[in-house]
Formats: sequence, C-alpha cells, structure tokens
Amino acid sequence: MFTPRPIGYIHSSYKHTDEVPRGLGAQHTAEGTLEILREFVPGLDDIEGFSHLYVLWEFDLAAGADLHVTPPTDDQPHGIFATRSPRRPNPIALTVVEVLGRDKGTVRVRGLDMVDGTPILDLKPYLSSIPEEKLKLGWMAAAHKTKS
Amino acid sequence: MFTPRPIGYIHSSYKHTDEVPRGLGAQHTAEGTLEILREFVPGLDDIEGFSHLYVLWEFDLAAGADLHVTPPTDDQPHGIFATRSPRRPNPIALTVVEVLGRDKGTVRVRGLDMVDGTPILDLKPYLSSIPEEKLKLGWMAAAHKTKS
Repeated sequence: MFTPRPIGYIHSSYKHTDEVPRGLGAQHTAEGTLEILREFVPGLDDIEGFSHLYVLWEFDLAAGADLHVTPPTDDQPHGIFATRSPRRPNPIALTVVEVLGRDKGTVRVRGLDMVDGTPILDLKPYLSSIPEEKLKLGWMAAAHKTKS
Repeated sequence: MFTPRPIGYIHSSYKHTDEVPRGLGAQHTAEGTLEILREFVPGLDDIEGFSHLYVLWEFDLAAGADLHVTPPTDDQPHGIFATRSPRRPNPIALTVVEVLGRDKGTVRVRGLDMVDGTPILDLKPYLSSIPEEKLKLGWMAAAHKTKS
C-alpha cells in the first residue's frame, strides 16, 4: 500500500485529548487552523469556495488497535468499526469542519476535535448529506437516550 | 506515521474506473459487498444498527500525485484538495454507503463507486449531516450549473 505522509498540521487550543468533547451530541465549535506544508499549498486553490471540508488526520496519539471497545459514552463493548475509537487497524480519523477563510497555506476552520499538532493526511470538499430523517444511529442512539 | 493495511476488499460490479459515474449529481446506487478479512470480522459487531457508513479506501489504481487537476466535470484546473481526484498526496478515498445487511464478514451496501477488488482501509459510522441549505459547493456548483 501507500506510505502516508503529513500534508500539514492542526493548530488548535486543545493540548490534550481529555479536553475534546466526546460522544453523540457533543458540540464541536472550536476554531483553529489547518497549517498546510509549503510544498502542498498550491493544492488548496479554490478550497475557500466550499463551506465544509472533510479533514482526514492521523490518530497519532493512539497506540495499537482493538477489535472491541467500550466508548466513554456507553458501558457496553462494540465492534471498532461501529465506533469512532482511535484504536483502529488503520489509525485514520475523519472530521467535518466549516471553512472560515484562507490565507495562503493557513485555512481557518470551525469544528475542530483534534489536539494541537495533529498530522493532517488529506482535505476533501464536503458535497452532500444524508437527510437526518434517513439516519439510523444504532447503539449510539440507545446509549445517548439512556444518558440524557 | 502508521503503515496502512487492508481490512478487506470491495466486491462490486465495476471492473474498470471508466464504468463509475462521476461528477456532482452522479447517482451512486450500485450495490455490492464489503468483504472484511477474517482477522478483523469481530470489529464489525453492531455495525448493522447504523443506516450509513463511511468507507475509507485506497485509490490503489492511482499513480502519483498532482497539486492541480482538471476534473472530468470541468474544464478548469483546481487545487487537488478542492477535488475528489485520486491523484492525491495520500491516496485515501471516502465514500458514504447505505447498509443493507451483514452476514459475518460480508456487509451488503448500496452506493458503491469503487471497482471490484479495491482495498478497504476503515469503516466508520455516519452520525450526522450538515443541512443541505448550509452547504456551499464552490467551483463544483458553477461547473454543474454550466453543464446541466
């Protein structure tokens, strides 16, 4: 397969994963920047026309993988692919952010849930949504209902 | 960084990338299966409770990367991070699919846009959407309007 390389790094006010809100319904309104490495900056052209981006990033603080995890928002174990847990076979994370602006290699965004210094793997335009009424949230809906 | 490894492979009726519908508004209704490798099958537990999944997969047919690309749906070049082009610094692709069912390591899905045999990197539950009325689609909206 390919060899991953950072295209840049997150700049956020979170210094530790414990500071990041977690679980279904957690509000991610933190603002910060995506600092793209100089060699990749031309790849940002036209990105500011999109309201939202997918940020693919590395769970660089996770060590190892589990096939079952008990998330902080539930007391039952679930298959890793039915969770957002960082301890995945490939430690790739996905976050949707809102674009606030761009200045050369710096993209200002809202909705960060990564700690400062996290390596970015890719950015992609967010193009379409599944209507909320068509979404089923499996164990998360049940766990959320119990806790709230 | 980490060393990517396939967690399984796509089984679809597309044998060549030319067969996959492209561009904004392309309908992806193809059904097929995600065939997860035996060692990772326990990680699928509870996945069938979610209506939609993110599939992260490798653009294994893409060779090299460009910082500007002219997509098939436009006649202007755009920054690679403002497109879905496969020729990215990290050749990671993202597709949202609808879950139809699961039998052990086989997940039946609708909405595939990958060719048969494509390596899968990760599966994640799709949890929430940005409302359509809040989305701005940049150059894609303009290119789409011109063509339709």
